[in-house]
Amino acid sequence: MTDVDNKKVSHMKWWGWGNEGTAFHWKDKPAFAPFVLKAVGLDLHSATPAKAPAFEEMTIAKPVASAAFLKTLGGIVGADDVRTDDMERVVHVYGKSLRDLARIRANQVLRYPDVVVYPDDEAEVQQIVDAAVAADAVVIPFGGGSNIAGSLEPVPTEKRTIISLDLGRLNKVLDIDPDAGTARIQAGALGPDLEEQLQKKGWTIGHFPDSFTHSTIGGWVATRSSGMQSDRFGDIAQIARGLRVARPGGTLVIRSLPSTSTGPSVREMILGSEGRLGVITEVTAQIRRNAEVREIQAYFFPNFETGLAAMQEINESDAHPSITRVSDGRESGFSLATSKERKGADKFLAGTVLPQLMKSKGWAKQPGGLDNIALSFIGFEGTKEGTKFSKAIVDKIVKKHNGMGVGTGPGVLYDQKKFDTPYLRDFLLDYGAVGDVSETAAPWSKLQAVYDGTIKAAEDAYASIGIKGWIMAHMSHSYHSGACLYFTFAFVEKSDMLAEYDVVKSAIQQAFIDNGATLSHHHGVGVEHSPWMEQDISSQGVAVMAGLFSATDPKNNLNPGKILGAKPQASGPKAAAGATKTAAAKAPAARKPAAKKPATQKA
Amino acid sequence: MTDVDNKKVSHMKWWGWGNEGTAFHWKDKPAFAPFVLKAVGLDLHSATPAKAPAFEEMTIAKPVASAAFLKTLGGIVGADDVRTDDMERVVHVYGKSLRDLARIRANQVLRYPDVVVYPDDEAEVQQIVDAAVAADAVVIPFGGGSNIAGSLEPVPTEKRTIISLDLGRLNKVLDIDPDAGTARIQAGALGPDLEEQLQKKGWTIGHFPDSFTHSTIGGWVATRSSGMQSDRFGDIAQIARGLRVARPGGTLVIRSLPSTSTGPSVREMILGSEGRLGVITEVTAQIRRNAEVREIQAYFFPNFETGLAAMQEINESDAHPSITRVSDGRESGFSLATSKERKGADKFLAGTVLPQLMKSKGWAKQPGGLDNIALSFIGFEGTKEGTKFSKAIVDKIVKKHNGMGVGTGPGVLYDQKKFDTPYLRDFLLDYGAVGDVSETAAPWSKLQAVYDGTIKAAEDAYASIGIKGWIMAHMSHSYHSGACLYFTFAFVEKSDMLAEYDVVKSAIQQAFIDNGATLSHHHGVGVEHSPWMEQDISSQGVAVMAGLFSATDPKNNLNPGKILGAKPQASGPKAAAGATKTAAAKAPAARKPAAKKPATQKA
Repeated sequence: MTDVDNKKVSHMKWWGWGNEGTAFHWKDKPAFAPFVLKAVGLDLHSATPAKAPAFEEMTIAKPVASAAFLKTLGGIVGADDVRTDDMERVVHVYGKSLRDLARIRANQVLRYPDVVVYPDDEAEVQQIVDAAVAADAVVIPFGGGSNIAGSLEPVPTEKRTIISLDLGRLNKVLDIDPDAGTARIQAGALGPDLEEQLQKKGWTIGHFPDSFTHSTIGGWVATRSSGMQSDRFGDIAQIARGLRVARPGGTLVIRSLPSTSTGPSVREMILGSEGRLGVITEVTAQIRRNAEVREIQAYFFPNFETGLAAMQEINESDAHPSITRVSDGRESGFSLATSKERKGADKFLAGTVLPQLMKSKGWAKQPGGLDNIALSFIGFEGTKEGTKFSKAIVDKIVKKHNGMGVGTGPGVLYDQKKFDTPYLRDFLLDYGAVGDVSETAAPWSKLQAVYDGTIKAAEDAYASIGIKGWIMAHMSHSYHSGACLYFTFAFVEKSDMLAEYDVVKSAIQQAFIDNGATLSHHHGVGVEHSPWMEQDISSQGVAVMAGLFSATDPKNNLNPGKILGAKPQASGPKAAAGATKTAAAKAPAARKPAAKKPATQKA
Repeated sequence: MTDVDNKKVSHMKWWGWGNEGTAFHWKDKPAFAPFVLKAVGLDLHSATPAKAPAFEEMTIAKPVASAAFLKTLGGIVGADDVRTDDMERVVHVYGKSLRDLARIRANQVLRYPDVVVYPDDEAEVQQIVDAAVAADAVVIPFGGGSNIAGSLEPVPTEKRTIISLDLGRLNKVLDIDPDAGTARIQAGALGPDLEEQLQKKGWTIGHFPDSFTHSTIGGWVATRSSGMQSDRFGDIAQIARGLRVARPGGTLVIRSLPSTSTGPSVREMILGSEGRLGVITEVTAQIRRNAEVREIQAYFFPNFETGLAAMQEINESDAHPSITRVSDGRESGFSLATSKERKGADKFLAGTVLPQLMKSKGWAKQPGGLDNIALSFIGFEGTKEGTKFSKAIVDKIVKKHNGMGVGTGPGVLYDQKKFDTPYLRDFLLDYGAVGDVSETAAPWSKLQAVYDGTIKAAEDAYASIGIKGWIMAHMSHSYHSGACLYFTFAFVEKSDMLAEYDVVKSAIQQAFIDNGATLSHHHGVGVEHSPWMEQDISSQGVAVMAGLFSATDPKNNLNPGKILGAKPQASGPKAAAGATKTAAAKAPAARKPAAKKPATQKA
């Protein structure tokens, strides 16, 4: 399985998500422009999108790196693979968060990495880590660069040499243990690359986050990722059984084991460590044989509340779906608005039959009427027998909650376009508008309160800054004791994009905490969510984690400032001397949690 | 739910497992004595068991504790609940490992705790922890005292005051969140106590380790316990969602969440921490409504190998059993040997019909003949529909692997006597014989090698010391990528019980590691398994964990010496001045891993 060309490392656009030439288009989606106008007051027909930012206008300070140190790095990876040119440094400076994209577009980067290195294998990664620590340099591991929590950015005030360690060449499935159902996969393998290598032998990783096309298995582990089918396959914390991590002084080896009682779990310390404990080089992951049946059924519920109740009952039942997902009325409306024009029988079914059916169920008469109708996707994957058994139970529960099944049509569409969503953020930025996401998890008993509290918090935040904003949500990822809520919010910049963004984003994060939810279910902490760590895991929890970091990385060489301690960039454009505004974003405002509560919550 | 008398804290026998007056009896089990004679050469008919050790013969040094510090403790919990009398100190010195029991019987305790305290609530626990750290004393949390990995014993050379912090009064189910399916349970609640409180409301914890009757939920968390039905309910690492831990300076609070991506998991650091990160005071645990159906079906397979293959196929199938367990031929024979005398139709079935059936399947002609037949238990729990669906799949897989079902009869017996096994250890010690267990987990692809390698290692160890020893095993706890193997071994002391024990126990542990398994699946590390930590999680893994401990407990006040660093007691009886030998055990020998391999294994 060495047929992957491991020399060619491709990256996303330096200024946005995904591949050059791919973008979100609205003109073939008749309901989209009216929806956007109604939601955030943006008239796509009259507005003129900004052009992509010009690279030659970027202000990029010279790299901080001695010739001797660059030579040392060259001695490890070869001189050609030690890169200090501007494009490499820009590509590696950030992930793709709203804040990242806005700052890049506004030429507001305060600190670029100084040097990008491309090791060929684990041995080279280990040598880079050791050389960096010996020289008191900083190492920031770089996988697909898809992170949206600020896990990749250099600390703005960093005076030492900053190395972006690109793992793109460690992209191979090394071997498969068919009997154990595991595969050894190099950390830099992108989703599609590793899946292709597995599929050749009839296996799947089963881990499909929204970022799948541009994220790596090492990144999934480093940020505690979850995939769309995690109900069946587990979160990455379950999938990743074995780990290898290049640490100062040697490689940490967690052998692939189904379970163990060897003290505090070092495996679970590496998970979510975002580079602070070393560079993940290899993951032994659970894999599964491709299933006999794989389908996504769509259902409608009268509203989000009944949808939630149904999802919970499904979770408690003997059904074992691969996906449990339900959108609130707003997101359901948004999904319909992003559909392409329907024709013929399809148009008749969607436009005439379905509304009639819904009316006949009395949904038009509920508070909020048909606008509150909730679209749900339930995935089934397994044997014919097993999926049939599960689907029968699900159908019964859906009926009990006054829902209705509408077949696999919408699920096929959802499945096809599931990885396209991130392109929307760039599309909106072109129009000076913000689109972003915040997701969380909470006990079933608190989900409705988290949902209500977050919607209200966002709306209050919009009101406080005089903006017509939008927020919508879905529930996904069911567990015994709770589930994930995933919010998407959007607004048009009024006068200061990042200042306004901070008000809204902070209100949402604070609402999570205040209502008993966590700061993130699967996006990680980075610098974006770190201000809420103490409120989430208590000050003693932070003390324990800080102790772990300081003891294992006493000189702060390993991706410093992430998870604990740092705050998102709060300085204005002046900080980046000579900055020019390309498309959006002015001064990002100082930001902090709205109310700092001592962790006196009951566990 | 405050109807538990939280003042009365009961303990196991000071010299053995379980309640006074309860013991293992063999005279009503006609096949037992012949089995023991054949297995380890002990003739129960002619041997005379030792009497229980006499408390008045124990040598107990005076407690190391200043009057001022005892007064401080009295100020926290009340003077009556600060205990320095001999019986309290003996009861709290050890868990119930073979080494513990042998040392107690031989009056070979090198260091007793100095003072036992009984806090009434979390606030008092917190004050004790803070007072202990302020006075540079040592705190060892004590739950049920059932640990068999040496997690409770004081460091023999400890000069500071050692407090055994008994959590027995924190024994209440504080509340139930029926919507989330969780309960807040105080850490000192014993299995039967908390289950009784849950059952009153129709719920179950679903966590039933062998130690259930004498272990606490705090202890389960502190040692990463697994229960017999963990295939359905999950290991304690999954069950324990929220945690509260009294740490120096304040209480660490992990809120109950279904999942989160807040960096390295502090929850997973507390799990398995054996007191080294603080004192667990409360657990928010997943609970389940009692199931409609709960049954354990018994099956026979021609041999262990086919049984293993069937268990793996069941795990991969759409069946969702609560228990998957299969014993090797030796353990299957042992199970039959511990049956009481059968009468009438039962005798005819077991003694005549079953052997006939087995012969008719050709099992008598396989290598090893009927002695290799493997007894398996598969548990089903859930709705009528769900269990029926699962059982049909299991039956098909059993048939495919040439197995046969024998109904629920043996399962009922197994279920009834499952908590009695630990009494066997004391029974054997009465006859100067060792009985002990070592369990592990490994990938499916390595299970057979781990099994074969461990059996061989034990037999080689027995041969090396000229002892006729016994070893048997079962597989339990199925996961996607592997399962647990649980070994039981026994022999009659030749000349030096603990020296001989060390040879055998070390050989078994080393065989685990050498064949790709872990040092323990659910018993924890303590001092018993700590010599293998570096081989299990690599030297860098140990360095990370050691960093965590040193940073969060710089003066080593929290149960020092456990998990990392220490070795099991290696000094002889001379160390305990004036020791008298009561029933068994002479000088425990120095012990170390047979071969220290650098952690170069592939993850």
